[in-house]
Amino acid sequence: MMNVPLNVPAMMERAAALYGKKEVVSRTLNGIQRFTYAEIAERTKKLASQLEALGVSKGDRVGTIAWNHHRHLESYFAIPGAGGVLHTINLRLSPEHLRYVINHAEDKFLLIDEDLLPLIEPIQEQLSTVEGYIMMSDSKEYNTTLHPVYDYEELINQGDADFSFFTDVSEEDPAGICYTSATTGNPKGVVYSHRGIVLHSYALGLADTAALSEQDRCMPVVPMFHANAWGIPFAATWFGTSQILPGPQFTPALLAELIEAENVTLTAGVPTIWMGLLQAWENGNYDTSSLRAVLCGGSAAPEAMIEAFEVKYNVPFLHAYGMTETSPLASVASLKSYQYELSKKEQLEIRASQGLPAPGVEMKVVNAQGDVAWGSGEMGELLIRGPWIADEYYQDDRSAEAFQDGWLHTGDVATLDEEGTIRLVDRTKDLVKSGGEWISSVDLENAIMAHEGVFEAAVIAVPHQEWQERPVACVVKKDGFETLTDKDILDSIRPQFAKWWLPDDVIFLEELPKTSVGKFLKRALREQFSDHLTKQA
Amino acid sequence: MMNVPLNVPAMMERAAALYGKKEVVSRTLNGIQRFTYAEIAERTKKLASQLEALGVSKGDRVGTIAWNHHRHLESYFAIPGAGGVLHTINLRLSPEHLRYVINHAEDKFLLIDEDLLPLIEPIQEQLSTVEGYIMMSDSKEYNTTLHPVYDYEELINQGDADFSFFTDVSEEDPAGICYTSATTGNPKGVVYSHRGIVLHSYALGLADTAALSEQDRCMPVVPMFHANAWGIPFAATWFGTSQILPGPQFTPALLAELIEAENVTLTAGVPTIWMGLLQAWENGNYDTSSLRAVLCGGSAAPEAMIEAFEVKYNVPFLHAYGMTETSPLASVASLKSYQYELSKKEQLEIRASQGLPAPGVEMKVVNAQGDVAWGSGEMGELLIRGPWIADEYYQDDRSAEAFQDGWLHTGDVATLDEEGTIRLVDRTKDLVKSGGEWISSVDLENAIMAHEGVFEAAVIAVPHQEWQERPVACVVKKDGFETLTDKDILDSIRPQFAKWWLPDDVIFLEELPKTSVGKFLKRALREQFSDHLTKQA
Repeated sequence: MMNVPLNVPAMMERAAALYGKKEVVSRTLNGIQRFTYAEIAERTKKLASQLEALGVSKGDRVGTIAWNHHRHLESYFAIPGAGGVLHTINLRLSPEHLRYVINHAEDKFLLIDEDLLPLIEPIQEQLSTVEGYIMMSDSKEYNTTLHPVYDYEELINQGDADFSFFTDVSEEDPAGICYTSATTGNPKGVVYSHRGIVLHSYALGLADTAALSEQDRCMPVVPMFHANAWGIPFAATWFGTSQILPGPQFTPALLAELIEAENVTLTAGVPTIWMGLLQAWENGNYDTSSLRAVLCGGSAAPEAMIEAFEVKYNVPFLHAYGMTETSPLASVASLKSYQYELSKKEQLEIRASQGLPAPGVEMKVVNAQGDVAWGSGEMGELLIRGPWIADEYYQDDRSAEAFQDGWLHTGDVATLDEEGTIRLVDRTKDLVKSGGEWISSVDLENAIMAHEGVFEAAVIAVPHQEWQERPVACVVKKDGFETLTDKDILDSIRPQFAKWWLPDDVIFLEELPKTSVGKFLKRALREQFSDHLTKQA
Repeated sequence: MMNVPLNVPAMMERAAALYGKKEVVSRTLNGIQRFTYAEIAERTKKLASQLEALGVSKGDRVGTIAWNHHRHLESYFAIPGAGGVLHTINLRLSPEHLRYVINHAEDKFLLIDEDLLPLIEPIQEQLSTVEGYIMMSDSKEYNTTLHPVYDYEELINQGDADFSFFTDVSEEDPAGICYTSATTGNPKGVVYSHRGIVLHSYALGLADTAALSEQDRCMPVVPMFHANAWGIPFAATWFGTSQILPGPQFTPALLAELIEAENVTLTAGVPTIWMGLLQAWENGNYDTSSLRAVLCGGSAAPEAMIEAFEVKYNVPFLHAYGMTETSPLASVASLKSYQYELSKKEQLEIRASQGLPAPGVEMKVVNAQGDVAWGSGEMGELLIRGPWIADEYYQDDRSAEAFQDGWLHTGDVATLDEEGTIRLVDRTKDLVKSGGEWISSVDLENAIMAHEGVFEAAVIAVPHQEWQERPVACVVKKDGFETLTDKDILDSIRPQFAKWWLPDDVIFLEELPKTSVGKFLKRALREQFSDHLTKQA
């Protein structure tokens, strides 16, 4: 077979050639703008030519600090297209961590949204490798202390539309890097190769996974600074899929409007986004009929939410699992053909699971006794391998812990049923260790969130004198359920659990702290309530 | 990213693990047999262990001379699973060519169906590398002069169900080889790598191509000895798709029965198969409602046939293009999303084209003036490149002609419209060169085959004193249209063509000669009628 390396810029070439008329809808600070792939590809080539002219050469990291919009999409291809490595920077990082990731990646340039200037201006003097800042803006009306500053649109105006993308790459060469938050310490860098990105794109297009298609109008709500918006900008461009990029500071109502106005067929994001969207739909009168699927990942979606999408709004809910280290798609909770004969309740349980590994990915569950047998009910750590799974953290001593014997050790605790379905039980560190037994905080959360009066819930392990740890539930009530009591909560879940699994207490809060990517920040809750049970006693 | 090589035996491991309950339906000489993937995988491991025990080691070629059935499927994985190279032998080759391909590939063993013994027994003494013959049979009641002979089922009985597939391969290593007929001379070998097969399988599963899925019940009618049955046995196994393998000497009526009885959702084959199936449907009372698509390739399907499937039987017709050298899927005639707004007639024209290259494949059309511009109407030779496109013929001097500058030169003449749609005009060698202009024999054939009284038609170039060559149509009438005249034919197509394109004569025949893979053997017709126009004059 021909030695044709899998290659990221070639994906944009395909969109330009075959789907030049298709559309990228981009929301910026000034509202909605529309571009064809022909225009996006030309702008991408112009930007790449200018990056090269500025001195970006093979392997140089170039950072982006940006929302989901057309310029960010162009950067996704222009940076590798100039030979560089796309470093998508999580704009929710602390200033200290922003400084760390930019310096650790040794970013040569930063592309930055004008409304995100306050993130970088204060730390500019501490960025040791950055040679210049490229302002992403619809106008030139920004003021900034950053220097030297280049204007994105001006670079494009001066760029070469006939630029040939850099091709002196092997498919194993890096095309991107993204840092993932660590429980403690600095974020850890995951490097994406051209090969990994292309193979992952195939996986997204498979009929049995997300079936991403040219026929779709896809809106990635998951940020482009988080695991490449799950690889959607790459795959959607390759397939000629119309993209709707929701831009800065979107609200649930805005998403609901975009879905209706732009006939979005597929959208992707974390559960907290979908909780918000459900509320917007309940409060407003939106047309949801264009949606063929809502892709959900990042953390486990509660069954009650999946049911709301599927039953109340007739929108198929596609639960997927992955992490920054897995590009991120590792598994999808599609039903096997014969599982459509199960009861709706059983189907829902499968749809709420982490599903089955995508073709190309291997997963297993391991505990101290070795590989966990399917259907045994045993818990263990979930291990993953495959050609789009990271094999190290970029220049980081913590690699040795997470990557062992050719497997990624996810830190997620899971079970495998007799069909091979993966079910996350918890994070290793979030399990409640009570009297030598394990209690899954996630199972308890799902059960509590099924209560009609609960908006969201997190169950945490709280130190306990007698039992070492005991579960405590932190609950946010829905509007209109102000009178909900801890007894109501516990009574509602009592039938589903062994008595010793029930939380020792229910704490009602106004909101739950979240991580930069919208997951519950259980560590903060654990710290806040670390003496909750000892105080009580 | 992890260095995990793409690997064929791993596809069977996935089917066994995740889809062990799914079904392989196999028709042999004794009728229908049913196996689960768990059983198929166990038998595959046992066979691989015995192949290894017989002496098959890394890179050894092992030939199969077999219909589409479960044992052939097992061989697809057991031969690479033992480190060998699967050589699927076209059982319609002449004895001389059979001898050539077996000796040229240096096959160490041959796996052979009992009803195909007469193909090999007469040439046994001329097979210089074959060390043994493995009989594929439901019983041991065969008699054969082949020696030494091993019984397939006996090997399986003695095999090791816990055998570990051979893994000391790089993904570029060969997993298969298939010979393709040449216009003149011996067949040419195409080597398939593990990488090529896996990437091609991804392509088959994409929503925008064939969307092959676990939800399908797929019946490859295209032979497993022809371009790996278009890669379906590999991809379908990987995805856990139920397979219906129609076995030896099937008839159109049998295919119609299998589609109905087995709820086939997707089937694949060449146009002559579908012509027969349409006739069976017209003559019988078959349920066709399970079919979600008929995948057609190998040679161009006439619009009239596509229309019959889509309009009369409501079965979507998916026209694809490829060849042995392209694994074979190169392009698919799916409609772009905005092309669904076109008239039905315009849509049909697109569906009857060769479509757009699959993601990963590049195609262009080149003539003496260079790359043909899209929408120019110019003809040129179709060139293809990509990671599952061959880069040479196996140990063959003819490689230099077909593979130049990193592109496969297909020998097909094509145009590109303004959407990039590829339309085959002809084979380079089948074009009619009339008075310095080119006439497409394929266009004329399609028009003639749209006549209700025409069963099939081939247009050939016949030497002509004044014009160098002129087109002549060879036509087979449908039953009930015995009175059809040459004038009827010419009148029916007259409005569609310039006067000088019209065939000089129409010759009615009882049947058209076909190649071993069911394509019209125009070379034979050209020879037979080489003095047809000079005689007339």
